[in-house]
Amino acid sequence: MINEKSFLLGNTGSAIRELFEYGKKRKEIVGEENVFDYSIGNPSIPSPSIVNETLIKLLKEKEATSLHGYTSGVGDLNVRRAIADYINKTYGVKEKPELIYMTCGAAASLTITMNAILNEGEEIIALAPFFPEYRVFCEKAGGVLKVVPCNTLDFQIDFDALDKAISNKTKGIIINSPNNPTGVVFKEDTIVRLANVLNKKQEEFKHEIFIISDEPYRELVYDKDTVVPYVTKYYNNTIVCYSFSKSISLPGERIGYILVGEKMKDAITVYKAIAGAGRSLGFVCAPALFQYMIPSILGYTSDLSVYKKNRDVLYKALTEYGYEITFPDGAFYLWVKALEEDANQFAEHAKKFELLLVPSDSFGMKGYVRIAYCQDPKMIERSLPAFKKLILDYKG
Amino acid sequence: MINEKSFLLGNTGSAIRELFEYGKKRKEIVGEENVFDYSIGNPSIPSPSIVNETLIKLLKEKEATSLHGYTSGVGDLNVRRAIADYINKTYGVKEKPELIYMTCGAAASLTITMNAILNEGEEIIALAPFFPEYRVFCEKAGGVLKVVPCNTLDFQIDFDALDKAISNKTKGIIINSPNNPTGVVFKEDTIVRLANVLNKKQEEFKHEIFIISDEPYRELVYDKDTVVPYVTKYYNNTIVCYSFSKSISLPGERIGYILVGEKMKDAITVYKAIAGAGRSLGFVCAPALFQYMIPSILGYTSDLSVYKKNRDVLYKALTEYGYEITFPDGAFYLWVKALEEDANQFAEHAKKFELLLVPSDSFGMKGYVRIAYCQDPKMIERSLPAFKKLILDYKG
Repeated sequence: MINEKSFLLGNTGSAIRELFEYGKKRKEIVGEENVFDYSIGNPSIPSPSIVNETLIKLLKEKEATSLHGYTSGVGDLNVRRAIADYINKTYGVKEKPELIYMTCGAAASLTITMNAILNEGEEIIALAPFFPEYRVFCEKAGGVLKVVPCNTLDFQIDFDALDKAISNKTKGIIINSPNNPTGVVFKEDTIVRLANVLNKKQEEFKHEIFIISDEPYRELVYDKDTVVPYVTKYYNNTIVCYSFSKSISLPGERIGYILVGEKMKDAITVYKAIAGAGRSLGFVCAPALFQYMIPSILGYTSDLSVYKKNRDVLYKALTEYGYEITFPDGAFYLWVKALEEDANQFAEHAKKFELLLVPSDSFGMKGYVRIAYCQDPKMIERSLPAFKKLILDYKG
Repeated sequence: MINEKSFLLGNTGSAIRELFEYGKKRKEIVGEENVFDYSIGNPSIPSPSIVNETLIKLLKEKEATSLHGYTSGVGDLNVRRAIADYINKTYGVKEKPELIYMTCGAAASLTITMNAILNEGEEIIALAPFFPEYRVFCEKAGGVLKVVPCNTLDFQIDFDALDKAISNKTKGIIINSPNNPTGVVFKEDTIVRLANVLNKKQEEFKHEIFIISDEPYRELVYDKDTVVPYVTKYYNNTIVCYSFSKSISLPGERIGYILVGEKMKDAITVYKAIAGAGRSLGFVCAPALFQYMIPSILGYTSDLSVYKKNRDVLYKALTEYGYEITFPDGAFYLWVKALEEDANQFAEHAKKFELLLVPSDSFGMKGYVRIAYCQDPKMIERSLPAFKKLILDYKG
């Protein structure tokens, strides 16, 4: 009698969460240091100290009714100005504070955007492998998620497949670079080519096709020459969904924003639809204290050298052992080819060595596992023999 | 081409917000102290000091990755335990932490609840006058809002009208006591009678009819003998939607909860649907820092003596001048009979005396204005001559 879809979503946890819960129980049995839990993408590095310093300063110095009061539904204007200034300075664009909408984090950014642009039955393209909640968010907004696999050589876009998938019903495409779960960063020429394809299709179908650029991992890249292109530069109908969760290790605080590219022809209309969608979903304003913190922390990240070291240690060891991995430029994930056809079976087998790896099926692709390496470096070191035993078990 | 409903919601602000914006402009022209802005229900009393003290303590003492990390999607268990303990001790009930779901405030509590229980075309009854966003939330969840006016003598429920309005499609009824916009508290016998009616109707129609008890003003009552009945005591199929926004003056921080009454037969099923609805709307977890603050502030309120004094001063003066007002036991609103048939015209006329009063139409009832008295007491004193002039203008 209640809403069946809501019940099913509440009753079936994600594969990732289930593995995480398994890990907690397993640790109780065999001891914490004997389980190698690579399940969850929960930042393990503390926020930069300026985060708590700024929060304490605000709590001590800003007048309480104004600090904790409602901000404008779209977010405090000074905060949005600071974000626009930072983006414009950093990426050489001309984005506008009036087109930034503050949100309760990445999930909110995505649901609000989808509810703003989608009509019943319209399609959003997701490039597999992709974050499983994209499907939940899209379907709740009345849309249909159409899956286009990436090319599995380097996990850039398979443009032949994409070309065939775009139809008159296509309202948008979600890209996520650096990517969860592959760690791959889309190269500039991938974005340029994507923009060309979409511009052509927009003309063909006589309506907008939006890029929804889901960017919680934007700052998580580890090499000087890795550039994450700023998508509004390349394509007018871009909506950026950003979150501070991963860059400054605040996933529980729910703070992020949506940015509507200033070159979009109907930017103001889309922005108003975003405000309306936020309102109808029950978002009144993003948490005020955390909004006011933002201007002070722009440009800061948690200490990424730990993630970089983790990546390098794991990538080097695992490829030496014989695992096939696409080199990840960013995020904190490795995407590893399973050693048997069925990734679920493979992940099940890995548990015998206390390795908790997420099978790829829920990311919309078969035959891989995801390793979330945002973990204690000591656990990573301890886990290496287990990875070796696992591959020996297959390849002898 | 985008979602038209979302656009319209984003393009048309609420009557309250528009009046508030008018007030800001008007203050620039005639001076801040000459405008009597009664438009917005934004708490004017600072949070009790324990709020900021607790936040600072958490920021200084709790380990940062754990403080700012994800909590469980339904909220931190210790926080939910503290809330259940407090409720049980205070109201003599036996509610369970496992049936409490932490939210980003009252609006989120309501949208999540509606998306959990409603199927397309099912009806929610709202008792007029009611908070205008109920309609937005209900329609977004696929429901139909059916309006039943309260009796206008004391603004308790008109049971004859309610009896006629309940149909096979009725999925729930929202009650809001202390009420926005009337300030009226539903008496115990109102709740008892409502429970009887709904129990009878449940049997008649062979399905659940939920009470959604929207309680952001629960603690805002001003007289010792005013009791706000705890609804789960009286009716099994009760879902409480709570927010800390008004009681401790934190409207911008977005923290509240949903409680599913432990006596509900299918409580666990409903709770899971709530978790699923929250997930699909883009709520990952309620802001972590503010969750962890809750156990320390339960039972505290802002200094309510200011609101009480405001109420008493305004009620006494306005009734002396000849205004008709239902005595409000709680919240921070007065519900005043307009001095002409059209409340919009009346509110327009009041602007000539720099009085900003919200006409009642957007609350689903004609012929009244709402006065939000959560204002600076000095403004209230200054505004009294304007109220006198206004009524003299009508009654000479």
